[in-house]
Amino acid sequence: MPVGTAGTVKAVHQRELKEDIRAQIILGNTYHLYLRPGLDTLHKAGGLHQFNGWDAPILTDSGGYQVFSLSGTRKIKEEGVTFRSHIDGSRHLFTPENTMDTQRIIGADIIMALDECTPYPCSYRYAETSLQLTHRWLERCINHFKATEPLYGYDQMLFPIVQGSTYKDLRKASAETIASFGQEGNAIGGLSVGEPAEEMYEMTEIVCEILPADKPRYLMGVGTPANILECISLGIDMFDCVMPTRNARNGMLFTRNGIINIRNEKWKNDFSPIDEESDLWADKHYSKAYLRHLVTSKEILGAQIASLHNLHFYLWLTGESRKRIIDGTFARWKDQMVKAVSARI
Amino acid sequence: MPVGTAGTVKAVHQRELKEDIRAQIILGNTYHLYLRPGLDTLHKAGGLHQFNGWDAPILTDSGGYQVFSLSGTRKIKEEGVTFRSHIDGSRHLFTPENTMDTQRIIGADIIMALDECTPYPCSYRYAETSLQLTHRWLERCINHFKATEPLYGYDQMLFPIVQGSTYKDLRKASAETIASFGQEGNAIGGLSVGEPAEEMYEMTEIVCEILPADKPRYLMGVGTPANILECISLGIDMFDCVMPTRNARNGMLFTRNGIINIRNEKWKNDFSPIDEESDLWADKHYSKAYLRHLVTSKEILGAQIASLHNLHFYLWLTGESRKRIIDGTFARWKDQMVKAVSARI
Ligand SMILES: [Zn+2]
Ligand SMILES: [Zn+2]
Repeated sequence: MPVGTAGTVKAVHQRELKEDIRAQIILGNTYHLYLRPGLDTLHKAGGLHQFNGWDAPILTDSGGYQVFSLSGTRKIKEEGVTFRSHIDGSRHLFTPENTMDTQRIIGADIIMALDECTPYPCSYRYAETSLQLTHRWLERCINHFKATEPLYGYDQMLFPIVQGSTYKDLRKASAETIASFGQEGNAIGGLSVGEPAEEMYEMTEIVCEILPADKPRYLMGVGTPANILECISLGIDMFDCVMPTRNARNGMLFTRNGIINIRNEKWKNDFSPIDEESDLWADKHYSKAYLRHLVTSKEILGAQIASLHNLHFYLWLTGESRKRIIDGTFARWKDQMVKAVSARI
Repeated sequence: MPVGTAGTVKAVHQRELKEDIRAQIILGNTYHLYLRPGLDTLHKAGGLHQFNGWDAPILTDSGGYQVFSLSGTRKIKEEGVTFRSHIDGSRHLFTPENTMDTQRIIGADIIMALDECTPYPCSYRYAETSLQLTHRWLERCINHFKATEPLYGYDQMLFPIVQGSTYKDLRKASAETIASFGQEGNAIGGLSVGEPAEEMYEMTEIVCEILPADKPRYLMGVGTPANILECISLGIDMFDCVMPTRNARNGMLFTRNGIINIRNEKWKNDFSPIDEESDLWADKHYSKAYLRHLVTSKEILGAQIASLHNLHFYLWLTGESRKRIIDGTFARWKDQMVKAVSARI
């Protein structure tokens, strides 16, 4: 899922997302949307789809993650989490109940439960206490979700989130609790927060063995192309990550042959297309040398082209994985690709 | 002509320029391109068209204007103008001869003579002396242009530039000199540099009476939609201006009903399309409220949408003018439009 933080996948038109990148779903951040444009505007617009002109599915997080990462002062209580806006310092409270209401107003097709995303490293004691709070919040989310109706005439789904830091028994217990709610899909949070990749894979594997295989498993905030391939092989179906767009703006391109830093002098006079094997028009139309010029000159078009490229590559990678899972050639291809996409070229 | 300073019309893809804005020609700035990516890269690429993937005509200025406006320390001598790069402070010299060579390397279809663009206000004595230098430089440009060949297998044209500040007799004398060279098109420089619009129109009128009507007359650096309509009525055929793109990035939209500051609170909950009458997909797809959200949130997509809109509007305005000149309804329509497009809404 391309990340559309504030209702826009940065530097990419909705038409490009649909026709060139062929994204099937994008993510919106409740924290950002709640602060700007705000719920009044989103409600009057008839929801985020109407507001931003994206007529395919949208998933919103609960806002909790950004509260923990962006808001300087925040305080977790049983009731919810209080925080100050990173924009104007104003004080706000997110509760399990009001984040359901907020996501009803945003009108996302898939909405997420409010959880506490524990930092890494995290003591066992903190992780356990936090997990219990996350589970209590989940019950309140589900109750409030069931007690309320969608606002714009189409159904919404609520995904719960497995937590438990890097502790196997907590992850197992959490996955069992989460699965027991029988929601239409399940998410794994609290990974890709600084732990070694091996620990992320280990936790993902443990959790995927418990979460039902016939419902989407969504690994939040992951990751590099190699991370995505490894986690697909462990049973993950959905991902979101700012990496393809954020790194694009800094000139980092992900390709099937490895990672390119387009700012590097070696691309200065390389007039070959950005990606010869790609079916994205921008990859074939623009050269590496031109993109390098744009990125080093801080031209907006550089961010536009690199974002298109990276998102298109991520969608190609996951689409190709799906094809290969279906035709039974995924495992060997994955091992080759993990090496290829991780190289620095 | 959309302005593509450093080989990119800011925030707009080449495909959008062609298919959505339907630009027939874009402008590149020799000063910027000379400094970055530099002549070595442009030469190796096979010229700017190959480098940036824009396969329709390109016009380049001589670089003189940016030397005067961007470079802190510069010195005009008979030989040419020495200046320091605004990027790294390095010292450079532009002469009539080497600006021809540079524009041969860039490979623009229309290249401009090196001139001194006098500031406003400017004493008669300075304007007269400067004009004589500009005319001497022009002879050297034309001689060097004739003595050299295009590098990439297609013809290039050289346009001379009328100067003379806001002095009627100097403008007349300059226009006569410029016309006498019989080049394929002629430009008017040194206007839209701070003088009242009435003086700009007066000078344009005087010069257009002398420059041949059967060759394009290009008014450099102009202007607002009203400026453009008035100058079309005085005989101008070509314009360039950063206004549609630069002002777009600040949230100023030009429309046939007037000028919109999209940052204004009044658009916060206006979910109507950016421009209902437009045939640009972005104008119909995105709402004013969404664009306001993007611009106030400093989202790149805001610059992208507003730039598309303004350029599309400018191209519509000049295209419509052309149609109405041909069918004989320009004069009345122009008077109405000048009022309409100047209103603040
Ligand atoms: Zn991430
Ligand atoms: Zn201008």
